[in-house]
Amino acid sequence: MACSLFSRHLTVPLCQSLRLSGPGYRHVSKTAAKTLDEFDYDGPSMKSKVPGPRSKELMRQLGEIQNVGAVHFFCNYEESRGNYLVDVDGNRMLDLYTQISSIPIGYNHPALMKVMSSPHNLSTFVNRPALGILPPENFPDRLNESLLSVAPRGMRHVQTMSCGSCSNENAFKSIFIWHRNKERGHKTPTQEEMTSCMVNQGPGCPDLSILSFMGGFHGRTMGCLATTHSKAIHKLDVPSFDWPIAPFPKLRYPLEEFVRENGQEEARCLEEVEDLIVKWRQKGKTVAGIVIEPIQAEGGDNHASPDFFKKLRNIARKHGCAFQVDEVQTGCGPTGKFWAHEHWDLDEPVDVVSFSKKMLTGGFFFRDELMPDKPYRIFNTWMGDPSKNVFLSAVLNVIKTERLLGEVTRSGAALLHGLIELQTQYPHLLNAARGLGTFCAIDACDDKTRDALIQKVRDKGVILGGCGDKSIRFRPSLVFKEYHVHLFLNIFNDVLAEHK
Amino acid sequence: MACSLFSRHLTVPLCQSLRLSGPGYRHVSKTAAKTLDEFDYDGPSMKSKVPGPRSKELMRQLGEIQNVGAVHFFCNYEESRGNYLVDVDGNRMLDLYTQISSIPIGYNHPALMKVMSSPHNLSTFVNRPALGILPPENFPDRLNESLLSVAPRGMRHVQTMSCGSCSNENAFKSIFIWHRNKERGHKTPTQEEMTSCMVNQGPGCPDLSILSFMGGFHGRTMGCLATTHSKAIHKLDVPSFDWPIAPFPKLRYPLEEFVRENGQEEARCLEEVEDLIVKWRQKGKTVAGIVIEPIQAEGGDNHASPDFFKKLRNIARKHGCAFQVDEVQTGCGPTGKFWAHEHWDLDEPVDVVSFSKKMLTGGFFFRDELMPDKPYRIFNTWMGDPSKNVFLSAVLNVIKTERLLGEVTRSGAALLHGLIELQTQYPHLLNAARGLGTFCAIDACDDKTRDALIQKVRDKGVILGGCGDKSIRFRPSLVFKEYHVHLFLNIFNDVLAEHK
Repeated sequence: MACSLFSRHLTVPLCQSLRLSGPGYRHVSKTAAKTLDEFDYDGPSMKSKVPGPRSKELMRQLGEIQNVGAVHFFCNYEESRGNYLVDVDGNRMLDLYTQISSIPIGYNHPALMKVMSSPHNLSTFVNRPALGILPPENFPDRLNESLLSVAPRGMRHVQTMSCGSCSNENAFKSIFIWHRNKERGHKTPTQEEMTSCMVNQGPGCPDLSILSFMGGFHGRTMGCLATTHSKAIHKLDVPSFDWPIAPFPKLRYPLEEFVRENGQEEARCLEEVEDLIVKWRQKGKTVAGIVIEPIQAEGGDNHASPDFFKKLRNIARKHGCAFQVDEVQTGCGPTGKFWAHEHWDLDEPVDVVSFSKKMLTGGFFFRDELMPDKPYRIFNTWMGDPSKNVFLSAVLNVIKTERLLGEVTRSGAALLHGLIELQTQYPHLLNAARGLGTFCAIDACDDKTRDALIQKVRDKGVILGGCGDKSIRFRPSLVFKEYHVHLFLNIFNDVLAEHK
Repeated sequence: MACSLFSRHLTVPLCQSLRLSGPGYRHVSKTAAKTLDEFDYDGPSMKSKVPGPRSKELMRQLGEIQNVGAVHFFCNYEESRGNYLVDVDGNRMLDLYTQISSIPIGYNHPALMKVMSSPHNLSTFVNRPALGILPPENFPDRLNESLLSVAPRGMRHVQTMSCGSCSNENAFKSIFIWHRNKERGHKTPTQEEMTSCMVNQGPGCPDLSILSFMGGFHGRTMGCLATTHSKAIHKLDVPSFDWPIAPFPKLRYPLEEFVRENGQEEARCLEEVEDLIVKWRQKGKTVAGIVIEPIQAEGGDNHASPDFFKKLRNIARKHGCAFQVDEVQTGCGPTGKFWAHEHWDLDEPVDVVSFSKKMLTGGFFFRDELMPDKPYRIFNTWMGDPSKNVFLSAVLNVIKTERLLGEVTRSGAALLHGLIELQTQYPHLLNAARGLGTFCAIDACDDKTRDALIQKVRDKGVILGGCGDKSIRFRPSLVFKEYHVHLFLNIFNDVLAEHK
């Protein structure tokens, strides 16, 4: 059951032309001729270790102002192009991390530069409106031509927000409001509800909950953080809600060797979900909604089968919980479909889909019944930023005209093939290659090795990101072609071969 | 005591040239010659009631996508200039609400247009970085020349965020982290803390609280919402935290007539703050921080005296609570000083100052000891948006070169004088005129009258906003001159005279 997600990748015979046989050996597949866009560079170019001296000096300066412990290096965004990020020491790196997966079509894409040079867009950048009260004339048109043109099946409504956390916070609020309106039979709230909510107490502030999954990540504001369970450092010292947390399936790889075990694992997790829903209802903290990522990203690129998600959707419906899919990292094409949850082929649409990152604006789609019943319930000053919608329109146009989803599927297949090849060659270093489109990952034998490999690969001109305990995640932009895959695989192969 | 805040306004003799003697009578003060910037219009121009037919049609269209109950009308931002907002029906209105107080220097200001036309800014708009890991080369310089050039006294650190809610959420998190680090003597967290926080439980997720004030507004994400107490509709149906809520002083006007009563009222509130801190500590929900607005805006433009805030700051220090001032609405000049809390003349700087709106970027300043001890604790993908910092630099430059804080003080004095004059003339309609700079308000006799007055004034070409139960708030941009004050006062006078 669980293997259906990847079986098509695994059964395709490995392309011989891709075989990587050791250090120094470089072979670019004949099927992946160099088809560079004019705005791309032709390869990495390294001048120093990264971070170099200029980055280190800037870190010192910024360190006077903020904690810079997470800063990798400083960038020269003017000189960056397409798949290549240039740093302040003149190093040009192939970027497979793309600002934590938030750059949709590469750096300085001509279509985005054009948005900036069009005089009739100027006012949209200069006059940021309070969208909820004074939207611009073109706002309905712009929503229709951008966000609604890629609305997930069954969705006609969308609310923009400024970032991923605000999107999930407001999605949760919409779910709570929807749930309470159902409970009170859509009657006017009582005076007691109106009074008690002003002082944070029930019944006005009810003891409802959102069910989330261990390993999940849904943001860092306090509502979101109560559903985030990927790393302790995100949560330590911050008060939280007593909300139920279900186990997310831990699949074993290669999938085709563990069909029975993975099926049992998914069944165990689903059973636990139902148990938690019952238990929390008994505790007086009814589960109003379930939130889940199609692929747990920050938590380690954890996958589950479409069958798991279909059954989870049914459990949500059975218990009257809204079913929210958090596509902040998976949305906008990296899995080869515009929304990752399209891979599940559900009978019934989901209730809420939240997005941000590559979509350039935050927000969430929602089904009819989740429309707020009154104004000012889902509201804030800006409610998004129309200048980001302008960029999004341009991005969607490029995705369509350049058929980038097909490109992602092709590049993704080549990437996964290459990773499987490498883990076969270096089984003491790598395992569990997995992915959908270019949204791929592979596990190192431990966190120390993972971190060392990422650093060594970076010094050879490729940027990768880590996730979970010991995983490497691949998050190139949608203009990442097969040519770039092979470029990366050869460099990675060199590093693995040299790794002591 | 309480009157010290406003006494200088109230004791200045009312300018005779301002006297408004009835409908039709129009007099523009000789001291307020028309000094329009070339990018401003010369007055309102109305073609229809507002919303007009085109706005109504667009509302219908947008209503298919979102709840539009809060939409006032649709705007033509291209044609808007300076103090004037133009709508889609060709109505040109003097804007004293400025997108819920978020437009700093008027519409389409030439200095902001220039930012857009400068080629070296293009890349900043097109390539939004993950600021926490890959900042642009000019980021330290840009922070120094923009945000840090206006840092409140005692502050050298600033963290940008995308919006006001995210700013307050992350400020609260910084306070919790600081508090727990103090409690554990800056030692490494225990294994139990690391494990328990992953499942939302103590001791890793401690039962700490933030003390807030009835009538306060600090945003709408779930952490912020637990400190927001201005209107029930913001909070209804959303789970919350059991955090302490103190009364905010309800001052009586005119202040000089109620010196003793207002002093007693402020003392009562401060006493309640201390009681709550003790009570919540006994409940095991220690107050880690106190958050307050210098003027409660959304809650009804409620003021307190500098003496109140000085004593509150002392209470926070005495009990080891961080003292956070939320300047999201008051910051960036509208009170005549850059930060409203500068009016208090505190002995010791505050601990955290959060901002957004007119600052164009969200964020918060913080004192040395609130610097996060580790990376990734205060973190998200974007952590602000450098393109907003570019605009902010231009705004700060205009504020400085055009001496807009002095302008605000002059316009504000004229506005408050005029409002006091009007409430004297129409005591059955208006009372409690109050304000600092142009950050003014006046109360109507009831909410129905307030709403009717706002609507009538709008139909004559002036946009106002409501707040609290029955207040009208004035939130013009910083380029609102004395000339505009008189223009507004004359229109308001006409409406009041005609009001049945």
